[in-house]
Amino acid sequence: MALIVQKYGGSSVADAEKIKSVARSIAAVRDKGDQVVVVVSAMGDTTDELIELASQITDHPQMREFDALLSTGELISNTLLAMALHSIGYQAISLSGAQAGIRTDTAHRRARILNIAPKRVVEEMEKGNIVIVAGFQGVSEGEDITTLGRGGSDTTAVALAASLKAEVCQIYTDVGGVFTADPRLVPEACPLAEIGYEEMLELATYGARVVHPRAVELGELFNIPILVASSFVHSPGTLIHGGGVSMEVRNKVRGIAHDLDVAKITVVGVPDRPGIAVSIFKPLAKAGISIDTIVQNAGIDNITDLTFTVAKSELAEAMRLVEPIAESIGARECVGDASLGTVSIIGTGMQNTPGYASKMFEVLSEKNINIQLITTSEIRITCIIDEAQVEDAVRALHRAFELDAGE
Amino acid sequence: MALIVQKYGGSSVADAEKIKSVARSIAAVRDKGDQVVVVVSAMGDTTDELIELASQITDHPQMREFDALLSTGELISNTLLAMALHSIGYQAISLSGAQAGIRTDTAHRRARILNIAPKRVVEEMEKGNIVIVAGFQGVSEGEDITTLGRGGSDTTAVALAASLKAEVCQIYTDVGGVFTADPRLVPEACPLAEIGYEEMLELATYGARVVHPRAVELGELFNIPILVASSFVHSPGTLIHGGGVSMEVRNKVRGIAHDLDVAKITVVGVPDRPGIAVSIFKPLAKAGISIDTIVQNAGIDNITDLTFTVAKSELAEAMRLVEPIAESIGARECVGDASLGTVSIIGTGMQNTPGYASKMFEVLSEKNINIQLITTSEIRITCIIDEAQVEDAVRALHRAFELDAGE
Repeated sequence: MALIVQKYGGSSVADAEKIKSVARSIAAVRDKGDQVVVVVSAMGDTTDELIELASQITDHPQMREFDALLSTGELISNTLLAMALHSIGYQAISLSGAQAGIRTDTAHRRARILNIAPKRVVEEMEKGNIVIVAGFQGVSEGEDITTLGRGGSDTTAVALAASLKAEVCQIYTDVGGVFTADPRLVPEACPLAEIGYEEMLELATYGARVVHPRAVELGELFNIPILVASSFVHSPGTLIHGGGVSMEVRNKVRGIAHDLDVAKITVVGVPDRPGIAVSIFKPLAKAGISIDTIVQNAGIDNITDLTFTVAKSELAEAMRLVEPIAESIGARECVGDASLGTVSIIGTGMQNTPGYASKMFEVLSEKNINIQLITTSEIRITCIIDEAQVEDAVRALHRAFELDAGE
Repeated sequence: MALIVQKYGGSSVADAEKIKSVARSIAAVRDKGDQVVVVVSAMGDTTDELIELASQITDHPQMREFDALLSTGELISNTLLAMALHSIGYQAISLSGAQAGIRTDTAHRRARILNIAPKRVVEEMEKGNIVIVAGFQGVSEGEDITTLGRGGSDTTAVALAASLKAEVCQIYTDVGGVFTADPRLVPEACPLAEIGYEEMLELATYGARVVHPRAVELGELFNIPILVASSFVHSPGTLIHGGGVSMEVRNKVRGIAHDLDVAKITVVGVPDRPGIAVSIFKPLAKAGISIDTIVQNAGIDNITDLTFTVAKSELAEAMRLVEPIAESIGARECVGDASLGTVSIIGTGMQNTPGYASKMFEVLSEKNINIQLITTSEIRITCIIDEAQVEDAVRALHRAFELDAGE
């Protein structure tokens, strides 16, 4: 008898019929004799509706109250799923994040899980219950409700799996697994049967939205295999794990990721002296603006250009902060550009293997795509390009690196 | 500096504008230097929407899950009201029933408050916060969420007021106080400036829906004055309290209550022997069906008729339980009637004063209203009549007992 943690996203529990369907899937696992702990997101648009309600009251809700408000979404889907299991004859119980012992820090709206005290979860399993835990939420030391931010429910699921020493954490979503590229852009993209944590982390961080990087990191840390699969169609899905993958697969690019949410700020004509970077990035960090890529070009005459990227939604705020600093340090000007995207190739096969970068640049060049910035890790090469050319780039790279279905 | 507990019902917080308006009312009290603890119901139709969601999943939701689901309604209004107070510059914090220390028994959907551990409420008040507590909910010893059933938020408010030794519990609703009769039936009805706990208890129990009998009972037990007033128009409202009311008022009927939710079951031709009543009422009690009035007519030849009343919604279930019992004890037949209502006159002035009953019967007789059953307490006379005649009866009694406005 194995212990399996399953997570169902908002689209999987969007209405009563879908909740009943999820209940049947869970029941089927239980019938095989396995123990199941389930994590659910809020139904479909519930979270957006709650945000809209708050916006009718105030433009600047206090984070503590906002979290208490948002957390109700998962409490609703949670109890309804338990009811659906009861109605088909299965023992089940819903638990809030607090009841399930999800203890977090006090960073409202982006809380981190500090630890899980799964006493109640274990007790309820021992009573024969399928335990349904509200995702995305926890409770702080001061007994206030917190939410975990983006990818929160994935994180709840993997953290619970780690804490309960589950055999696997299954993440059910509206796509059939991790694909070699976004299938909406590349019809030839196909699901990967398996992928390593590191590769998945790069894919997720650089745009594959199927599972959140935080959850992948946790999976790697506690060595919990994560299966990503569709809750709508029967498919084997993708297993994210730490075991070795076959030689053949290791020598390949595993996937193409892309991200259309990229804006760039270039501070032009910066005097090249120590402390300049600090003076620019410290205020951004204080404002909670996350910087993805920083490139400083070698300068001539002690003058350099400093370029970095942020999310599009944060460009205006970042410009507002950086412009006066640029002026005060004697930079020539400050240019913002919100029309960018990234395309990345990812695969452990790149390690110690030359030729991937040059091939990538060649493919983009053939398509007349201008590369604005390049960043790399050991298993990833990312090019920042015009957002209008991202789709073309993803398709061309997918073909060039022999990822098209059937190859 | 006084401590005031305020309660706002669902219609008072039905949308964002109304929530902002409630926030301004609370702020005005704070400005006078008083401390405020607020209890809120769920917004307008939220509870009905949650019940509808559950009904799409199952016809027989488990009570524990149902309570967890319903409790989210008050968590939403709760946090929104705190946000509204922040947005106009006031310190406030929302607390769930559990966070506010509302400990109940485990009788889901109709839990009773066992005690209140208001540690967090007091701490937050000491920090200068207006504390907004979710009404209608509590937490059981096993850390499960419970709801308090009908009148739950009123009960939360009065219980909190008692626990915090508040000066007064103010219940804001969509009517301007306790009226001499339902103003929708009797345009001449007028609000009472004050009323005693006992009279209010009878009025509320026999149909006045403005404040729940449970809350009045608690108020009496802990001697907490309860002010019932409108949240929409400025009105002095009605103070429910235990102090003496003036002689003049004591010698009058204070109000006319009516209830249209009355059904009657008559078991005809019951053999008049010990144990018969037990055999009929025990199964009804087990099924949670509440009996309002029981009348057994003196029998001839050891044969009697047994009549009792239930809520209309429970007539079918009660008949289903009683019919086989009636047959087994040799009764002739079992007759149900769902077309009844009650009308009651209430006032401590009736105690030891003859003539109220005969006057009541005379008024009804003049209107050609047939009285089916009569029940009385020391300060109340209730007649069960045809529901179609209730409105007429209320108006006639209101006039006859000199309650019409201006008299």
